[in-house]
Formats: sequence, structure tokens, C-alpha cells
Amino acid sequence: MIERLCVIGVGLIGGSLARALRAAGAVREIVGTSRNAAHLQRAVDLGVIDRFDTDPARAVQGADMVFVSVPLGAMGSVFAAIGNALAANAVVTDGGSAKSSVVAAIRDAVGNIPSWFVPGHPIAGTEQSGVEASFAELYRGRRVILTPLAETDRQAVGRVRAMWEAAGAVVNEMDVVHHDEVLAATSHLPHVLAFALVESLARMSEQREIFEYAAGGFRDFTRIASSDPVMWRDICLANRDAILAMIDRFEQDIAALTEAIRGRDGERLLAIFADAKAARDAFAGQPATQPAQDGQ
Amino acid sequence: MIERLCVIGVGLIGGSLARALRAAGAVREIVGTSRNAAHLQRAVDLGVIDRFDTDPARAVQGADMVFVSVPLGAMGSVFAAIGNALAANAVVTDGGSAKSSVVAAIRDAVGNIPSWFVPGHPIAGTEQSGVEASFAELYRGRRVILTPLAETDRQAVGRVRAMWEAAGAVVNEMDVVHHDEVLAATSHLPHVLAFALVESLARMSEQREIFEYAAGGFRDFTRIASSDPVMWRDICLANRDAILAMIDRFEQDIAALTEAIRGRDGERLLAIFADAKAARDAFAGQPATQPAQDGQ
Repeated sequence: MIERLCVIGVGLIGGSLARALRAAGAVREIVGTSRNAAHLQRAVDLGVIDRFDTDPARAVQGADMVFVSVPLGAMGSVFAAIGNALAANAVVTDGGSAKSSVVAAIRDAVGNIPSWFVPGHPIAGTEQSGVEASFAELYRGRRVILTPLAETDRQAVGRVRAMWEAAGAVVNEMDVVHHDEVLAATSHLPHVLAFALVESLARMSEQREIFEYAAGGFRDFTRIASSDPVMWRDICLANRDAILAMIDRFEQDIAALTEAIRGRDGERLLAIFADAKAARDAFAGQPATQPAQDGQ
Repeated sequence: MIERLCVIGVGLIGGSLARALRAAGAVREIVGTSRNAAHLQRAVDLGVIDRFDTDPARAVQGADMVFVSVPLGAMGSVFAAIGNALAANAVVTDGGSAKSSVVAAIRDAVGNIPSWFVPGHPIAGTEQSGVEASFAELYRGRRVILTPLAETDRQAVGRVRAMWEAAGAVVNEMDVVHHDEVLAATSHLPHVLAFALVESLARMSEQREIFEYAAGGFRDFTRIASSDPVMWRDICLANRDAILAMIDRFEQDIAALTEAIRGRDGERLLAIFADAKAARDAFAGQPATQPAQDGQ
């Protein structure tokens, strides 16, 4: 049982965790904080949090669990603000989509890698954002990756794992660097491609007409381009190296495909498409931990 | 009322048109043809067609409407086979996803652009294929683009339009070249990117694990990579020039985005992502003619 949970950044991710833990009876009190009192009041009105304080140092006082769900670019200032205000038994974890940068941010803010910090990433979300979009079932059956370091207290890891399991998630542990590579491939690159494609089409002169003839395939393909621009700017900056490496790899594959189209190499095209279809069909056939929506 | 419809290639597209017209009471008899008698028998068993003949020249005999829904690479041989077997009042249309190549194929097969041929393209489909996947509602509220030529009989256009409207579709006319450019942008490029992305990931050593951590965003983004490889090989060959031009345009946009990531240009990234999100949200807000599924 979490006695007092402090959620820093009460949007889709933080709000959904609060709702899930409350629904599971796994938390006694939930305090929210962010820079926007109106948003926080809305979270209180919705029953997502019990009370709020716009000062993060005050908000974390007495909390035994702190969940930081702010854009990656804001992690550093949050850690700096709360580092000296935490209760002795507090465990802090986060929901950032890239982990190396979060670890660097806490090292810079606190002066070392604190034993009480457990880097985490729930592989869940939708293209929506804000507390209004939060819901208790967001994490049900979804994966959460924890990337503890040598310095991390194993008891702290156990408490964070228990929290996510209470929210319905399946928890795995992974190396920080490996996490960032895997996410660059499965999430960050697809988002970059979707944003770039929509931008390409939007800049074509026949824009209005083009979108008129776009259909469901395009709709699915570009859904993630409706995601929060600030969050994705931060992810691109935070996971820069892994994303650049993945773009480079993808560029080679698209170049090979383009060459096959240019050279009218039907045999090669068929081989590539059949391979991809087989891989996608195998992925689609995977059971569980793969519900319908996700934006991260 | 269509007295006798001949469907050449009874898969998702042809089968769904047959089902829709039958459900609308807009056709008296439906004859199917393809090279595969077992598939055709299955279509009879499912009530999609009334009878079949594996010889296309015999199958079109006495038909007043012929719908050709075979992969683009097979259009030429179909037109060669049926050109001299058509009834005097027959109108022929097709469902090919690229139109220049279909027009070239019929010119080569028949020796000119026949007045009885109306090039068409229903902007509908799913990533499924085969007659088992066909359903009567596939075209409801969806767009069908007709690309008649100077040689095309306007009465023939009117009959094809009436057929699609009976199936529930919204019919527009467009220039052949323009159609191919619009579809390269909204459909063909996204499919090429989805195939290339899945191929990239499938070739990474940690393949199994990578797909394990892929979530709903990836699922949506890559759904179209489950589409029929033969159909997409043919589309890439048939609409080669427009697709290459679109890839080139996209490469410039992805290069600009990559440069912004490399240069840690957060302002530029935010501007691009915000633009794209606005365009995608505007597209998502469009009413009607945009149901959930599509693969072409």
C-alpha cells in the first residue's frame, strides 16, 4: 500500500496511474503538482488527485512514492526542486520515454545517482494528452520497463514494480542504453516518420484535396502524428543518438527499396514486402500486452 | 439495374462490390472468373457470385458490366483475353490503385483507348485479402475516383458511377496523372514506409525482443505492412514515377528533420511537429467518407 503518492505532472500518464492505483485500492492519498493550478484543480474535480500544491518541494513532503511524468526537458528542474525535500523512505520513479537523459538529469541535479531513484517507462499512452484523457485501464496488460542502475536500491525497485503491477502492468527490467535503442526503433522512429509524412503532405499545394482522398490506411499510419509536439521534441533531443542511428539504418532500407522501384526489380520488391508482411503478421498475432492504443 | 455483372478476380475488392450490389438489389446475375476454380467455388458457396468460368472470355459473354479487380500486373492479359468477347452494350471498369498503367495496358491490349472502358479506383480496402474478407459495407461512404479519358463514352461513365453509388460510395472524377500523384502521396508512400520500417526492425538482431516492446502506436503505424505483397509490388512498378517523386520529396523532409535532431534544434523540431499535428488533427476531424479501415 502506498501511503501518499505524489504525481508530478498530472496529464494522461500521471493521471492514469493515479486513477489505476486508486481503483486498485493500492494508495491512500494522492497529491498532484505542476505549474498550472487550473489543471490541478481540474484533476481534483475529476477525482484523479486528492489535493495539490504548485510547489513541487512542498508537494512531495511526506510522500513515500513520487511519480515524475513531465516532458523529458523538464525532468532536470523537477529533480533539482525535490531532491532535498523528499521523505527518508521516499522512492522516486518516472515515466520518461528515453532513460539515458533522465539518468543524466538526476545525476546533474542531485550530484550522484541516488539509490532511491528507479528509472521507468510505461509503454502505454494514446495520441491524446491531458488529465481529461486519463483512464484507469491505460496500463492494464501493458509493459513497463524499469532500468535500475548499479546504485539503485533493490527494495526501491521492488516497490516501483509492485506499484505498476497494482496498476495492471507487466514489468520488465532492462539496461538503460538498450532501452533507448529498442524504443528508438519501435516508437521514436515511427513517430518521426509519421510527423515527417504529414508535414510533407501538408506542404504540398493540393493539401486540402490530398487529405480528402486519404483513407483509413493513412489514418492509422499517421495517428501518432497527432501526439504532443513538446513531448516529441523532448524525446528527439533526449534520445538523439539512438534515434539518429535508427534513422540511418532506416535510410539504408528505404534506399534499397527505392533502388528496387527505380530498377523495376519486381522480384526484390516482392521479397521485401513478403518479409515485412510475415514479420508484421507475426507481431499482430502476439497475444496480450498489446491492446489497441498507444502513442509513445 | 445491371443485368449481368462479371467480376474478374473475386477477392476483397471484387467480392465486396458483388456483395454490395446484390444487397442493394442493383444486379440480377453475377458471374465470377479467375485462374483458381477452388477460390471461385468458395465465392459461390459464400453467395458472393452466382456462377463462374475460369475462362475470362467466356465469363464476360453477355455481361453488361465487367469489373476487373486483379493485381495491376495482370491487367494487360485480362484485357487481351476479354477485348473481343464483350457484349455490344458492355461497359468495363477496374479497381486498380494506379491509373496510368491500366490505361497503357488496355491501349496495348486493344490497340486503342476503347470508349467502353472507364478507369476507376475505389479508395477502400483492408490489410486483408481474399473473398473471405469481402463484405457488402466496404464501400459505404468511401470515395471512388473515376479517371475517364477523352475517348471514354460519357454514358459508360454514368453507368459506372451509378454502380458505385448503388454500392454506397461517393464518386469523383479526376485526371489520370493527378490521381496517380495524389495516391502516391496518401497511400503508396505510406505503404512503402511501413514495409521498410517493419523490414528494418525484422532484420535487427534483437528482432523478437524489439517486437515484444512495440505497442499500439507501432501496431497502427505498421498495420498496412500486412497488405498483399503481390499487389504492392505491382503498384510500385505501375506507379513508379509518381512514387519515386514522392519518396524524393519525403526524403528532403526527413533530412531536414534529421538535421534538426542532429543540431539539437528544439525550436525547429517543435515547429515541424506542431505543424504536422495541426494538419493531422484537421484531417482526423473530417466528417464522413473516412471510416476505420483501408489498405490501399
